[in-house]
Amino acid sequence: MGELRRDPVVGRWVIVETEHPDRPENLTQEPHVFKQEGTCQFCYGREAQTPPEIEASRLQGTGANAPGWKVRVIPNKFPALTIEGQLEKRGVGIYDLSNGIGAHEVVIETPEHRKGMADLSDEEVLEVIRKYKSRTLALSQDRRLKYVLIFKNYGESAGASLEHGHSQIIALPMVPKYVLEELEGAKHYFDYRGRCVFCDLLSQELLEKTRIVVENKNFLAFCPFAPRFPFETWIVPKEHNAFFGDISDEQQYHLASILKETLRRCKLVLSDPAYNFFVHHAPIAYEHKERFHWHIEIIPKLTSIAGFEWGTGFYVVSTDPDLTAKYLRETK
Amino acid sequence: MGELRRDPVVGRWVIVETEHPDRPENLTQEPHVFKQEGTCQFCYGREAQTPPEIEASRLQGTGANAPGWKVRVIPNKFPALTIEGQLEKRGVGIYDLSNGIGAHEVVIETPEHRKGMADLSDEEVLEVIRKYKSRTLALSQDRRLKYVLIFKNYGESAGASLEHGHSQIIALPMVPKYVLEELEGAKHYFDYRGRCVFCDLLSQELLEKTRIVVENKNFLAFCPFAPRFPFETWIVPKEHNAFFGDISDEQQYHLASILKETLRRCKLVLSDPAYNFFVHHAPIAYEHKERFHWHIEIIPKLTSIAGFEWGTGFYVVSTDPDLTAKYLRETK
Repeated sequence: MGELRRDPVVGRWVIVETEHPDRPENLTQEPHVFKQEGTCQFCYGREAQTPPEIEASRLQGTGANAPGWKVRVIPNKFPALTIEGQLEKRGVGIYDLSNGIGAHEVVIETPEHRKGMADLSDEEVLEVIRKYKSRTLALSQDRRLKYVLIFKNYGESAGASLEHGHSQIIALPMVPKYVLEELEGAKHYFDYRGRCVFCDLLSQELLEKTRIVVENKNFLAFCPFAPRFPFETWIVPKEHNAFFGDISDEQQYHLASILKETLRRCKLVLSDPAYNFFVHHAPIAYEHKERFHWHIEIIPKLTSIAGFEWGTGFYVVSTDPDLTAKYLRETK
Repeated sequence: MGELRRDPVVGRWVIVETEHPDRPENLTQEPHVFKQEGTCQFCYGREAQTPPEIEASRLQGTGANAPGWKVRVIPNKFPALTIEGQLEKRGVGIYDLSNGIGAHEVVIETPEHRKGMADLSDEEVLEVIRKYKSRTLALSQDRRLKYVLIFKNYGESAGASLEHGHSQIIALPMVPKYVLEELEGAKHYFDYRGRCVFCDLLSQELLEKTRIVVENKNFLAFCPFAPRFPFETWIVPKEHNAFFGDISDEQQYHLASILKETLRRCKLVLSDPAYNFFVHHAPIAYEHKERFHWHIEIIPKLTSIAGFEWGTGFYVVSTDPDLTAKYLRETK
């Protein structure tokens, strides 16, 4: 039987199974099979098969679109949105539409086909984080764009069509709905209490301790009180900051370390699950920095969403976040 | 390349592929395999294996929990919420929670194991619709409850754990988030224009005609302008009405006919896809009847949701609703 819990940021209710929660072994996932190794465009030595790189971490003396790289950023070959053209918004009767202006980039995280982010060294993840930052800052200069989303799909069931480790960056001409909801929830909380809801959330998690997965100098990784998915985990910077692009050198280092460590623990406890993660931060040029607090949400893909969730926005979660955090915290 | 489109009710943006949209044959789905036939508790003759029925359509002279039925309503054996107890809301620091008070019922739609709703006669679907209505009205009497959700999962990938045709009814002690969003969107529209957004939407679809799938005296089935999913289809009553429970006898008849016909066409065009549908209507005792308009949303399960969708609430849809409606409209 479930307990109804409410997310303090967006107000979403979920039903959490606290009496007979699923154990990790109840949550099945498909095994990862590597089928694309011989033909993968993201592999070392096949740089000419991708669109020309936007930027890359390279050994000194190596040229663009050739071997010698550690991380490459390229335009998506099949972009959801295109960077060329004027943004044109119009109406058709009661409907609003716009042409698809935006950016869609791919961050190839490693030259090695079979390495997931959980298998990389802290230093290798740090190179990826640095690209997230530099692309976020570069795209934030474009006045047509309102939001930069960094996200990752790992595993076929999480939507990854290419199996070589990569993340994606999409820049959008409007602020997406889920970010607006977090901004509104955080504003509501700030108006009432005069404090950032994420800062309060951090305080409570650090006090209760039961939902903490990993902690380091600059970040806390924990399983949220009202998750949507089993083993959902958030990574939140301890210092209040609205924009991911403002991350310091020291914070980048500690983010790489905690992200890699959290994903490594998920891999161990859940037998290499498919997952998504995404960065939520303030929209470009957002003025109320005191109200919002960037963070990463990691959602392992262990269950499917059905009619109840689609019809309500309620989620029925078969695990207890106190226990999922314990499993992740106690694994070695 | 995509066109950005905005849903006029909730304001959700989606990216619709208008240049190179997927055809039905590009959208693969798993075949339906019947594995539970020999042991299915929902089958005719195994009535004693389910919890005692709440109500049923029966041949005269047959007793409860025995053969002689056409449609049975039973409590869910593994309910997400329980109907017994007081509703107790409380807080823990910044978190809100409540015990899981509510109802969780199952409507067994047919005695025949292999018949989907698309295979039933109009009269058989009508019996199901009648149960939806009577249970909605009965649950609406419970003062602890705020919303009655009717929904259906068909096919394993749409979350159906039992393959025998059934729908579910969950009554909740709070109004779910997605319904609140529709109520707020509809209020916003009503405040600005003094008209119901769904009534305007119907007018525009009846004028443009390109997205209509089926039409009858009381209902319109059409592919929405800004769908979340390929082949998403909505069924909207032509007459303004906020509550599903107020459906008239004539409307029940025409709803059964259009629901069955829409599902039959989806089955033909998409090779028997997994799908979800759910009824959205006003919360129990909602006072602003002029603002809301009940409807059914049908979402075939043809694609998976990935990091971009989870991170933004934006959806990237690989089909064009003008074409999906044409496929569904023109099939025989």
